[in-house]
Amino acid sequence: MADKGSPIGVFDSGIGGLTVVREIMRQLPDEKIIYFGDTARVPYGNKSQETVTRYSEQIVRFLEANQVKAIVVACNTASAVALDELEKKSDIPMIGVVKPGAKVAADTTRNGKIGIIGTEVTVSSGIYSRYITKLNHKATVIGKACPLFVPLVEEGLLHDAVTDEIARRYLSELIVTGIDTLILGCTHYPLIRSTVGKIMGEKVTLVNPAYETAMELKELLVRSRLLYSRNETESKLPNETLHANEMALEEDRYRFYVSDGAEKFKKFAASIIKYGFLSAKIVNIEEY
Amino acid sequence: MADKGSPIGVFDSGIGGLTVVREIMRQLPDEKIIYFGDTARVPYGNKSQETVTRYSEQIVRFLEANQVKAIVVACNTASAVALDELEKKSDIPMIGVVKPGAKVAADTTRNGKIGIIGTEVTVSSGIYSRYITKLNHKATVIGKACPLFVPLVEEGLLHDAVTDEIARRYLSELIVTGIDTLILGCTHYPLIRSTVGKIMGEKVTLVNPAYETAMELKELLVRSRLLYSRNETESKLPNETLHANEMALEEDRYRFYVSDGAEKFKKFAASIIKYGFLSAKIVNIEEY
Repeated sequence: MADKGSPIGVFDSGIGGLTVVREIMRQLPDEKIIYFGDTARVPYGNKSQETVTRYSEQIVRFLEANQVKAIVVACNTASAVALDELEKKSDIPMIGVVKPGAKVAADTTRNGKIGIIGTEVTVSSGIYSRYITKLNHKATVIGKACPLFVPLVEEGLLHDAVTDEIARRYLSELIVTGIDTLILGCTHYPLIRSTVGKIMGEKVTLVNPAYETAMELKELLVRSRLLYSRNETESKLPNETLHANEMALEEDRYRFYVSDGAEKFKKFAASIIKYGFLSAKIVNIEEY
Repeated sequence: MADKGSPIGVFDSGIGGLTVVREIMRQLPDEKIIYFGDTARVPYGNKSQETVTRYSEQIVRFLEANQVKAIVVACNTASAVALDELEKKSDIPMIGVVKPGAKVAADTTRNGKIGIIGTEVTVSSGIYSRYITKLNHKATVIGKACPLFVPLVEEGLLHDAVTDEIARRYLSELIVTGIDTLILGCTHYPLIRSTVGKIMGEKVTLVNPAYETAMELKELLVRSRLLYSRNETESKLPNETLHANEMALEEDRYRFYVSDGAEKFKKFAASIIKYGFLSAKIVNIEEY
């Protein structure tokens, strides 16, 4: 049975979800995290709802087997099309990245015009629009799929003329609509935030759902009485023991699993997470 | 049991293998074909040998269940890293696209300098180099991975300034080596043949392994006494019956299966194969 000391499960189609992990590490530094990246079947963003749901269900079963106390779907595509189904089939408290992102955007906009960029599946699901208009009846939401952003990021072209050109094409039709808020609706996109910001101009606020997701996760843990507090649990130990214990905890605190290419993942992860990243293990996710 | 009238199985990680199917249709117009595209797990080109092999084995089991008489691995990545393993585990005659491509290149070069472009996995496997130097001891083979070509093709940017720019970057280091022959070592690449040709210049011959693969398939079928001849089988039927029979055969001759996104696949396939493409069905390939 999961308790306060159990880890938080976080998953994504690949590496993008690490931008969410980074934010959880910052805001909930005492929590343990188990991350799963589905690198053998990445990307999800151009696959069908059925396939994305089936893959996500397997990952939830893997995380359940690892006794997580809560699950963060750190993938916009899976949050958009699979989260409802996942919640039906599991007792573990769960949050996605779409709702938190929608909330910030609805709070941020002044002129009521919000843009959302993401994968084909996320954008065509229309889910950001549904959440935002629930919170702000007058808001207009304009979506634009940017399918080449993920491969460009994965190739490391974060600051590059080609990425600029592709971004200009994708974003030009959003600029003319007069949006004042733009949601980075894919966990890869914060990595090209500066390119997107440059093209959209200073008057458009970029929303990265990762920060708000970590905040909502904290609320969820408090509400479910699952928030871990290191002091509470360990204050009874003598000082020396505490020290040795902390060392062991550090080793074990962040665990990363992928379905393929552990070495490649490790390299990329080290560029996103500067602290606490130790190693990645392979899981045959089709068995779950 | 498979016999002369049984279909040929062809597979790829996605849609690229259709350029090989097109060539088989042209050269062996009487044969039936079952195609499988692993669109739920595409791409293969940046995944590990273990994963590509496991996926390919599942597909071979699916094709075996469909009683194919021969299998064409119409994916350079799978041909490069999985074919040996697949052949060990199946009695069905099998060919890949690497060996045929290597043969044409070895025959084509005049100055012995051959370039090969492909996915990361294909290029880093060094397999083209091994086959070519076996055929031509003096040949030098220079490989260059072009990981963005597949997403650019899948986004339909076949004639586009961005594809030109990316191609110029990838190919510039091949141009300076003085190669006179360049293998299009990924089944997606024939679709941007004109861009590659323009940049490499007239003096460099581009080799598309698809044509030679279809030729080798024919030889394999002859050798295994599995070549289908419509005349031989149907000449005994009266004329009217033959006509009705041909109609039914036409419907059934080409069957396409994918692991995801049948509609999207259909649209793309129709742009590659002008004739005989009817529909695509979904298969849950993880069950094989």
